[in-house]
Amino acid sequence: MYGRYTQDLGTFAKDEAARLRLQEGDTPRPRRPSELLEYTQGRCAPCRVCALQCQRFLISKVGEDWVFLILLGLVMALVSWAMDFAIATCLQAQKWMYGGLDTNVLLQYMAWVTYPTVLITFSAGFTQILAPQAVGSGIPEMKTILRGVVLKEYLTLKTFVAKVIGLTCALGSGMPLGKEGPFVHIASMCAALLSRFLSLFGGFYENEARNIEMLAAACAVGVGCCFAAPIGGVLFSIEVTSTFFAVRNYWRGFFAATFSAFIFRVLAVWNKDEETITALFKTRFRLDFPFDLQELPAFAVIGIASGFGGALFVYLNRKIVQFMRRQKTINRFLMKKRLLFPALVTLIISTLTFPPGFGQFMAGQLTQKDTLVTLFDNQTWAKQGISDEFEYLGILEAWHHPRSNVFVTLVVFILMKFWMSALATTIPVPCGAFMPVFVIGAAFGRLVGESMAAWFPDGIHTDSNIYRIVPGGYAVVGAAALSGAVTHTVSTAVIVFELTGQISHILPVMIAVILANAVAQSLQPSLYDSIIRIKKLPYLPELGWGHHEKYNVRVEDIMVRDIHYVTLNCKYRDLQQVLHSTKMKNLPLVESAESMILLGSIERTQVGALLSSQLSPQRRLLTLRQKVLSEDGHRLSDSSIRFQISTETSSGAPARPALRKPLKPALKRVPSSPADSPPVGSADHTGIALKNLFCANAAEPTEEEMILGDKMTPAEILEWEEQQLDQLVDFSSAKIDPAPFQLVEHTSLHKTHTIFSLLGLDHAFVTSIGRLVGMVTLKELRKAIEGSLTGKGVKVRPPLASFRDSTASTTEADTTALHQLWDRHQHHHMPREAGPGGDDDDDTPKGQ
Amino acid sequence: MYGRYTQDLGTFAKDEAARLRLQEGDTPRPRRPSELLEYTQGRCAPCRVCALQCQRFLISKVGEDWVFLILLGLVMALVSWAMDFAIATCLQAQKWMYGGLDTNVLLQYMAWVTYPTVLITFSAGFTQILAPQAVGSGIPEMKTILRGVVLKEYLTLKTFVAKVIGLTCALGSGMPLGKEGPFVHIASMCAALLSRFLSLFGGFYENEARNIEMLAAACAVGVGCCFAAPIGGVLFSIEVTSTFFAVRNYWRGFFAATFSAFIFRVLAVWNKDEETITALFKTRFRLDFPFDLQELPAFAVIGIASGFGGALFVYLNRKIVQFMRRQKTINRFLMKKRLLFPALVTLIISTLTFPPGFGQFMAGQLTQKDTLVTLFDNQTWAKQGISDEFEYLGILEAWHHPRSNVFVTLVVFILMKFWMSALATTIPVPCGAFMPVFVIGAAFGRLVGESMAAWFPDGIHTDSNIYRIVPGGYAVVGAAALSGAVTHTVSTAVIVFELTGQISHILPVMIAVILANAVAQSLQPSLYDSIIRIKKLPYLPELGWGHHEKYNVRVEDIMVRDIHYVTLNCKYRDLQQVLHSTKMKNLPLVESAESMILLGSIERTQVGALLSSQLSPQRRLLTLRQKVLSEDGHRLSDSSIRFQISTETSSGAPARPALRKPLKPALKRVPSSPADSPPVGSADHTGIALKNLFCANAAEPTEEEMILGDKMTPAEILEWEEQQLDQLVDFSSAKIDPAPFQLVEHTSLHKTHTIFSLLGLDHAFVTSIGRLVGMVTLKELRKAIEGSLTGKGVKVRPPLASFRDSTASTTEADTTALHQLWDRHQHHHMPREAGPGGDDDDDTPKGQ
Repeated sequence: MYGRYTQDLGTFAKDEAARLRLQEGDTPRPRRPSELLEYTQGRCAPCRVCALQCQRFLISKVGEDWVFLILLGLVMALVSWAMDFAIATCLQAQKWMYGGLDTNVLLQYMAWVTYPTVLITFSAGFTQILAPQAVGSGIPEMKTILRGVVLKEYLTLKTFVAKVIGLTCALGSGMPLGKEGPFVHIASMCAALLSRFLSLFGGFYENEARNIEMLAAACAVGVGCCFAAPIGGVLFSIEVTSTFFAVRNYWRGFFAATFSAFIFRVLAVWNKDEETITALFKTRFRLDFPFDLQELPAFAVIGIASGFGGALFVYLNRKIVQFMRRQKTINRFLMKKRLLFPALVTLIISTLTFPPGFGQFMAGQLTQKDTLVTLFDNQTWAKQGISDEFEYLGILEAWHHPRSNVFVTLVVFILMKFWMSALATTIPVPCGAFMPVFVIGAAFGRLVGESMAAWFPDGIHTDSNIYRIVPGGYAVVGAAALSGAVTHTVSTAVIVFELTGQISHILPVMIAVILANAVAQSLQPSLYDSIIRIKKLPYLPELGWGHHEKYNVRVEDIMVRDIHYVTLNCKYRDLQQVLHSTKMKNLPLVESAESMILLGSIERTQVGALLSSQLSPQRRLLTLRQKVLSEDGHRLSDSSIRFQISTETSSGAPARPALRKPLKPALKRVPSSPADSPPVGSADHTGIALKNLFCANAAEPTEEEMILGDKMTPAEILEWEEQQLDQLVDFSSAKIDPAPFQLVEHTSLHKTHTIFSLLGLDHAFVTSIGRLVGMVTLKELRKAIEGSLTGKGVKVRPPLASFRDSTASTTEADTTALHQLWDRHQHHHMPREAGPGGDDDDDTPKGQ
Repeated sequence: MYGRYTQDLGTFAKDEAARLRLQEGDTPRPRRPSELLEYTQGRCAPCRVCALQCQRFLISKVGEDWVFLILLGLVMALVSWAMDFAIATCLQAQKWMYGGLDTNVLLQYMAWVTYPTVLITFSAGFTQILAPQAVGSGIPEMKTILRGVVLKEYLTLKTFVAKVIGLTCALGSGMPLGKEGPFVHIASMCAALLSRFLSLFGGFYENEARNIEMLAAACAVGVGCCFAAPIGGVLFSIEVTSTFFAVRNYWRGFFAATFSAFIFRVLAVWNKDEETITALFKTRFRLDFPFDLQELPAFAVIGIASGFGGALFVYLNRKIVQFMRRQKTINRFLMKKRLLFPALVTLIISTLTFPPGFGQFMAGQLTQKDTLVTLFDNQTWAKQGISDEFEYLGILEAWHHPRSNVFVTLVVFILMKFWMSALATTIPVPCGAFMPVFVIGAAFGRLVGESMAAWFPDGIHTDSNIYRIVPGGYAVVGAAALSGAVTHTVSTAVIVFELTGQISHILPVMIAVILANAVAQSLQPSLYDSIIRIKKLPYLPELGWGHHEKYNVRVEDIMVRDIHYVTLNCKYRDLQQVLHSTKMKNLPLVESAESMILLGSIERTQVGALLSSQLSPQRRLLTLRQKVLSEDGHRLSDSSIRFQISTETSSGAPARPALRKPLKPALKRVPSSPADSPPVGSADHTGIALKNLFCANAAEPTEEEMILGDKMTPAEILEWEEQQLDQLVDFSSAKIDPAPFQLVEHTSLHKTHTIFSLLGLDHAFVTSIGRLVGMVTLKELRKAIEGSLTGKGVKVRPPLASFRDSTASTTEADTTALHQLWDRHQHHHMPREAGPGGDDDDDTPKGQ
C-alpha cells in the first residue's frame, strides 16, 4: 500500500521538478534580458519592470496555501450570497403572484402550485441532463472521496454548474429543502476547479495529497459560508466527513471559513440588508437570566424526543427511497418519465401548504427563513392568563389561527413538515435535509417551550424576581437537538450559537444535543451514512458506543484464509490460473509456495499486463521471425532492429501508463481498469482472447507483421501460447508494491478498524513471521462489525471464546512456524561458513 | 510494531476472559442460590434480592463508557469547585490582612509580601517532596503521553495530591499563574486513578488502548470544568495534545466536559453565588450593533500585535529557563536551597504589585479574576469629551489613578505583567500560563479599545444612530488573540465566547486569533512545544505552513543505512556482538545476511534475555550435572526432574514478565528495562557479568546448586561460556514482533511524518521488496524536519535534487534487486517440481 503510492509521489516530484526546470530553463530566463532591454528603451520602463517583477512575485505566491484559501473563501461567499439573492427573488416572485391574484382562489391556487412544480421539474431535468452526480446532498459522496475513493465526475465544472443552478431553482420553489449539504459539495467542487485553474501558474496544485487537505478545508467553507458559522462549519464538516482528523489541517478550515463567512456577511452590509455584521438569525434573549436550573429536565426531554425523531426521520427517508426503488410498476412508470416523480411530490406538498387551504393550520405562507425567524422569536405566543392576550404582528400572524390555538398549529406544522421533508429530500434535485430538519426541531422546541410557558406563567423561579420562560430558547435547543440527531453530530450546537448570535443557552443546548445523539446513534445510522449505504458507496461502519466485544474479536476470526497468491518463481500458466480463480484487485507476491514469505503485492492489472505481453503477437512474430532468420538468414538487419524496438516498446507499455499518469492521491484506490476484466470474462478461450485484447490495446500491427502473423495457423498460435505459458514469469517489468500493509492474526477488530480508517486501506495481508496466512478486506471488516452489532451475518467470537486457544498453545503455534523456517534454514545453508552469495550445499545431492 | 502490541492485546483478552470466567465460575454462581435462600427466609427478602440484582446490574454497568465519563466529570467538577473555593478563601485572607493593617504601611507591606512567599514556598517544597512530576503545566507531558510514550509517575495518586494542593497554594498566593494546564493534568490523573479504581469491579479498565481514549476525554474535561467551557475545552485539548484526532472519540470529550461544566456551575448556583447557570465572566455588550465594519482593522492590529507578543512571551519564558540552567554559580546556589528561587521571585513580584507602592500604577490590588471582570467591563474608561467624566465605582477604582490616566495604568500593567508572568511560570510549582496571558491580552485589547474610543468618541458609524465603541469587546478580542498566539490554538476563540457568554464578536475574534496564530507560528513554537523541547521529551515537530519541499525529501535521504540486525541462523556470539555495537531498542530480524529479508523485529531486552538464559548458571549446572550423572550414574532421578523444572522456569522467565504485565497501550514504547543495560555497560567481561546479572535477577540458587557451581573454576566457566556462545540461537522462547512497520525508500518525508504521527511510531524499517535496507527513527525524522526548516543540521535534498536519479534508473534499481532475489530462487530450487517441503537440489553437489 505504502510502497506503491509513495513511489508515485516520488515519481511525481521528479516529473514536477523536471517540468519546472524546463519551464524556467526554456521560457523566462533567456527572454528576460531581452525583455529588460526592450523595456528600458521605453519611457515608463521602470514601471514595467516593476510590474513584471510584481507579476512574477504574485505567481510565485499563488502556490501558497493561504492564497488558495482566501480565493476559495471569496468565491464561495460570492456564490452563497448570489444564490441567496436569487432564491429570495424567486420566493418573492411567488409571494407576489400569490398576493396579486387574491381575487380568485382557484387562480391563486394555480399560481401557488404551478410555480414550485415548474421550478422543481426544471431543476430535476436540468440536473439530469447536465450532471446526474449533482443530485442530492453531496456530503455522503464527499465523505467517500475524503476516504480516498475516486468518484468519477463528482468534482467537475459541469457538476458545479448543475448543482448551483439546480439548487437555486429547488430552493427557490419553497419546498422544505436545505442548502447545507449541497454547499459542502459546491465548495469542494470549487476547490477542485480552483486548484486546477491555479495549477496553470505552477505545479503545486497537481499534488493530490495536498488537494485532499484542501478538500477538507473546502467542506468547512461550504458550511461556514452557508450559515455564516465558521467554527460550527469547521466542526460540522469534520464530524460528517472525517474519521481521523489531522489537527495540522485545522487552521486551513478556520481560515477559509472565517474569511468566507466574513465576506458573506459584508456583502449583506454593503447591500444595505444589515447595518453591521451580525448573526443570520439574531435572537435577543435576556442575558442575565437565560433559563432556570429547573427548566433543564424540559431541555433533556427535548433532547431525548429529538433523538427518537431524528432516528425516525432517517428511517422514513430510507424507507421512502427503498419503496420507490422496489415498486417495480411505479418505478418503471416513473423511470420512463423521470420528471414525473418530482412534479408529483411538489404538487402534493404545495397543495397541502396552500395558505387559504390546509396551509392556514401550519403557517404555510411562511418561507423557511421566515419560519425560523418567527420560531426564534423572543415573545411568548400562548395565552398567559385570561386577560393577557398576545398580539400577533407582522409575519408572526401566520402562526395564529382564529379558530384554533398556537399549539394545534405547531403540532400540525411538525407532523406535516416531518413527512414532507423526508419525502422532499428524496426528489432527484440538488438538496439537503439539514435546514428542514432544523426548522422542524425549532418548531418542536417552541412547542415544548410554549407548553412550559403555559404551565408556569410566571416562571419556575420563586425568589424575588420573576423570570418568565423564554420559548424561543427552547426553539433553539430543539433545532440543535433534532439536526444533531439526524446528522449524528455535536457541532450543531455550535452552529446554532453562531446562527443566533447568542451562546447563553449553551448548557441546555449541549445537554439536549448529546442526549439526542445518544438516542439516535443507538437506533439508526446518520442520514449521510444511510445514503452511503443506499448508494452502495464503499464505507466502513463506526464501532458504536459500547464496543467492548470488539477487543475480543481478532483478525484470525474474520480473515479470508483461502487466498490466491503469486509466487516469485511461478509460470505464466500460474498467473493465468490465479486471474481466473480470483477477483481480488491486489494479489500477494510470496517467495515460494512453501515459505509463503510475503514479498509485496502486485496489482491485478499488472498481472494481466504481464500475461498479455508474454502472449503478445509481437513476441510471437519476433520468435517466428527469429526462427525464419535462423532458417533463411537472408533478411536485412535493420528490419530486425526495428522489430526489436517495437517489441520492447510494446512489452514495456503496460507498465508505462501508470508512471505517466498524474499522481494518485496517497490513499486512492484505482478503479479496475478495463484491461483486467477481459481475462476474467473470457475464462475458457484465453489464448485467442488475450491476443484480441492485446491487439485492441497496443498499436496496430504493421502490414509486414500482419503478413508474418498470417503465416501461423490458429493451432500453431495455440501451441506457441502453451509453450509461452510454461515459461517462468519475469517480474522485472511489473510494478510491485514492496510494502503492503500487514496485520497479524492476533490484531483485534478494534485495532484493525482504527488502522483501516486511519490509513484509508481497503485490504491488508495477515502475516505470521513473514509468512502470508490470510487477508482482510473492507468487506470482511464491514461484515464483522455489522455482524457483531446486529448479531447475525458473520461468525463472531462470543465474549468468552478467546478461551478456545490458550496463551501457551498460541505461542507454541508461532514457535512452530518459526522453527520450521529455522529448520529449513539450518538444513539449507550456513551462510557464515559459506561464502557470501555462493551457492550452498544440501544434504542429498542430486544430479540435474 | 503492530504485531507486538496486538499480540499483547490478544493475550490480554484471553487473560481477561479467563479471569472473568473464573470469577463468575467461582464466586457468585455457587453462592447465588444459597444467598437467595437465606434472604427469602428474612422479612424484606424481595427487597434484598432486588437490591442484590440492582447491585449486580450496576457493577455490570460500571464498564460502560458513559458511567466512567459521568464519574470523571463529577469528580473533576467537585475538585475544580473546591479548589476555586479554597483559592478564593486564600485571596480573601490576604485582602483581609492587608486591609486590617492599614495603620502601618510597613506592616501592611510585610503582610502583603510574606503571605504569598510562604504559600509559594510551601507549594514548591510540598511538590518537591511528594512528587516533583507535579511541577509545571502538565500539558506538554500529556501531549507526550497521548503520543504513546510512558512517563513514569505522571499519573499516580501521589502526583495528583501534590498537584491539587500545590496548585491551590500557588494560585492562592495571587501570583500571575493559571490553572488551565494543571487542570488538564489533574483531570488525566483523575481518569487514570478512576479507571484503576473501577477496574476493581471489572476488567474493562485494564485495556490501555481504551484508557488512552479516556485520557483524551479527560484533557477536555480539565479545560471544560476549569472555565465552564465544554466546547472550547474539547477543542483546546484536541489542539494542544493531539496530532491526529479520532472523530469517534469526539463525543466522549463533549459528554464528559459538558457534564463537568454543568455540575461546576450548578455548584455555584447551590452555593448562592449565582442565581442561575451563566458564563463565568459574563459580559453585557449590546446585541444589535456589536461592532462597526470599520473597526475591523483595529481588531486585525490587535491580532497581529498579539502574534508578536505571544512569540515574545514564549521566547522570554524559554530564555529565563535556559538562563537559570546555564548560570552555574547561581544555579549551584539555588539548587542547594531549592526553595530560594520561588521565594525570591515571589518577593520581587509581590513587592512590585504592593498597592500603596508601585502597584497603584498597575491595579496591583486586583486579583486575576477581578482584573478580568473589570477589563471586560461594558463602560468606556477614557474621558469622552471634557465634561463627560466617568466615575470609577467598586473594583473599577483600581484602574484609576489620580495623577495619571487610564492609558498609563494599562500600559504599565501590560509591561509589568508580561515579564512577571513569564518569570512566574518558571517557578517550580504546579502552574499554568494560560490565564496570565489571557489577562495580559485582555488588557492589551482594552488599551486599543480605549484608544479607539478616545479617537472616535461618537463611534465611526456616521448614519442616523450613534453607536459608541465598546472597549470591552476589544478586551475580549485581545484575550483570545494573545492566548491563541502563545498556545498556537484557534479554539481560544470558542473559550472566550463560553467564558463571556456572548458570541456577538465572533468575526473580530476569529480574525484576530487567526492572524495572531499566523504570526506566532512563523516565529516561535507554542509554549507547550517549547517546554517539551526544554524538558527533552520525545516529540515530532510539525511541518510548518508552506511545506512544499517536504514532498521532495524522501526516506532514502534521511534513513540510517548502517544498521545492526539479527539473523535467524545466527549464533549467541553474534547476539552478543550486536548488543555491544548498537543501542537500538528494537533489532530487525532478517532471514539471513545475504537475503536480508525482514522477518520481524525483536526487542533488545529479548535479545539480552536470550543471551543471559543461554549463559545462565542453571544451564551450566545442568550440563555439569548431566556430565556428572553420566560419569557416576548414582543420583536420584527425582532430583534431576526438579532440576529440569527449575531450568525450564528460568529459561522461560525472561519472556514471562512481559506477558504478565498489564496490557501496554497500543503505541507505547517500553522504556529500556534494567535487564538490557548491563550487557552494554560491561562490554569486556561479559561472561561473569552476565552470570552476576542473572543471579541478581533469578531466584537464588539453592544450596545444592551452589555446591555444584563451586566445582567449576572461573576458567572452566569461561570456557563453557565460550562453547555456549558458539551455539545457534534458539528463538523459540523470544517474543518477536512479526509485523514491524515498514516504509520504502521513496516514501516522502511528508508521508513519513504523517505515518509516524498517525501511528505514534518511534521507528520504522525501510525495505525494498522484502529486503531490509535501512531504518528511520524519530531522531532522524526530527533532524530532517528541523534541518530543512532552518537549513542546517542534516543533509536535505534541494528542491531540484530529485533529478539526480531519473525515473528509469530507480525502477532499474528495484528491478535489479528483484532479479537478484529471483535468480537466487531459480538457482536454489524449483518448488513446483520438487515435492513440497522436500529438500531441494543444487547445481554443485557437495558431500557433507
